[in-house]
Amino acid sequence: MGRKRSVTISDVAAGAGVSIATASKALNGREQVRAETRARVLQVAEELGFQPNALARGLLSGRTQTAGLLTDGVDRFSLPVLLGAEDAFGAGQMSVLLCDGRGDSIREQHYIRTLLARRVDGLIVVADSTDPRPSITDDLPIPVVYAYGPSTDPADVSFVPDDVGGAGLAVNHLLTLGRRHIAHVTGPVEYLAARDRAAGMRAVLDEAGLPLAGGEVLHGAWSQRWGRQAAELLLTTVPELDAVFCGSDQIAYGVAEAAHELGRRIPDDLAVIGYDNWDVFATEARPPLTTVDMNLERLGRAAAQHLFTAIDGGAGGGVHRMPCRLVVRDSTAPRRTG
Amino acid sequence: MGRKRSVTISDVAAGAGVSIATASKALNGREQVRAETRARVLQVAEELGFQPNALARGLLSGRTQTAGLLTDGVDRFSLPVLLGAEDAFGAGQMSVLLCDGRGDSIREQHYIRTLLARRVDGLIVVADSTDPRPSITDDLPIPVVYAYGPSTDPADVSFVPDDVGGAGLAVNHLLTLGRRHIAHVTGPVEYLAARDRAAGMRAVLDEAGLPLAGGEVLHGAWSQRWGRQAAELLLTTVPELDAVFCGSDQIAYGVAEAAHELGRRIPDDLAVIGYDNWDVFATEARPPLTTVDMNLERLGRAAAQHLFTAIDGGAGGGVHRMPCRLVVRDSTAPRRTG
Repeated sequence: MGRKRSVTISDVAAGAGVSIATASKALNGREQVRAETRARVLQVAEELGFQPNALARGLLSGRTQTAGLLTDGVDRFSLPVLLGAEDAFGAGQMSVLLCDGRGDSIREQHYIRTLLARRVDGLIVVADSTDPRPSITDDLPIPVVYAYGPSTDPADVSFVPDDVGGAGLAVNHLLTLGRRHIAHVTGPVEYLAARDRAAGMRAVLDEAGLPLAGGEVLHGAWSQRWGRQAAELLLTTVPELDAVFCGSDQIAYGVAEAAHELGRRIPDDLAVIGYDNWDVFATEARPPLTTVDMNLERLGRAAAQHLFTAIDGGAGGGVHRMPCRLVVRDSTAPRRTG
Repeated sequence: MGRKRSVTISDVAAGAGVSIATASKALNGREQVRAETRARVLQVAEELGFQPNALARGLLSGRTQTAGLLTDGVDRFSLPVLLGAEDAFGAGQMSVLLCDGRGDSIREQHYIRTLLARRVDGLIVVADSTDPRPSITDDLPIPVVYAYGPSTDPADVSFVPDDVGGAGLAVNHLLTLGRRHIAHVTGPVEYLAARDRAAGMRAVLDEAGLPLAGGEVLHGAWSQRWGRQAAELLLTTVPELDAVFCGSDQIAYGVAEAAHELGRRIPDDLAVIGYDNWDVFATEARPPLTTVDMNLERLGRAAAQHLFTAIDGGAGGGVHRMPCRLVVRDSTAPRRTG
């Protein structure tokens, strides 16, 4: 006997007396196939020596061309990540099942069961902050990519903004403009985003041999109110202050409000930088804010593209830190000498 | 012969020599079934006098328990509508395919084809403003519900916020507090939201026999900058002004900024009301804003629940105007006499 032709799903279907589609479903464990039909198909496949792995690249591959998007709650920050992923999936002819877990573990488990029952090819978990969130990868038979916030398991694949680098861009910009007395007003220390941005700022100041104006990082709420309070404190106690780097555009908006009321000119007397490039604050502040953009839609797209690779069996693990970019507007300018 | 037992899908499947699942797919026109199999199933169904309509309520009903969510672009306003619908679908064991059309008709057509190929049971179209948007109902074999903005076809089913009523709540509140010189600062006249809110305000003022302070509705951008400009104008030209009803919280935030700078006390000298209950403006303004909440998440839930009914063959057409609610904070209080 010569070399055997490899067994195809057509052979299995013919042997079992079912259509190719039914044979495919039976082999992939779909629920739409009757138990006795499935048993017959599996028996024939075994007798013929059919290799189910051959399915993986075929037309009847068991792929549903569907991905799950599981969110921990959708807000201004996770929304662009979600939309970027949706856009990349659409371009790749994948449909997206949206599940908003809302940070509720029972709800999340319900949704994961639903997504598995629907045989999604892979899953993106969109976090609601950059803080690590529990891994669900081990429980799932499909690839999982974490976006915006990483998973707690460093072996998982995560796409997160490079906040350390983003803060570095901002402070380097201030130094280039000749600013030397730079304070930092940011959100609660419990947030990794606040700690990362503070670390990025410190690294650049340290390298320049400059102290932090005001002596310490001013942690408070992610709010205009905190920006106003912190600015009033700084402007009345640190007379040499010539720049404030803020951990969010909301905070920077509040800093600009307070500076305006205290008669300080931005950017002449005081340069102000925000973070987020959130248009309703960044472009509406007086003057419009120089700020750091985390490129969140691009981050979502990159996560989806990575998932494509992972579904095809490529792709390793690890945390991908995606670069931020500085958006320069009128709240920063060279220091006026004399 | 007695009365014939009605023909079931089991009879069709047995007659055609296929499984019930395959017979169901063939009768529902699914693409996974081979052409020759489908032809055989349809022939047997005709011979036996099988009524495919009997499928509609059965276990093998052809329902995919999947709904499409087609958005015209997702922002702070359409997002809660989308999340409300997603929540109602999840509770109803429906999965949601998310498609962000981004207001691009080619992209929208692509997504509609995809959703039909995936046999969604129904579709919710989430608009990006309350302006009517083109109807797609006639092109589709499944129920469609429009949410946030209505379709241009009044025979379609739409769920929209009752902006006329919402503005009425706000102005009635001001009248109850003894305010008599009320101005209105809002967004571009091109937006139905701006026109509806102005109409609601006018109706209440007319009924009270009061003129509009400042003489006319002040239309501008949906921005703090416009709020500041309009307030500076009003506060310097209308000395008797005692309240400003704003078409958005962003505008109201700007009005409060300008009033603060011009030394007017809110609410003692000037009552201010916003619209949207957008926390980053409403709770961060000085003082926090009384505002109108459109209950958008509830609106999205109602649209999804209506779609369930429509899928089951109930539900008529028409525009459902969903009530808004007034959220009272510190920017309004009784007028101080003397």
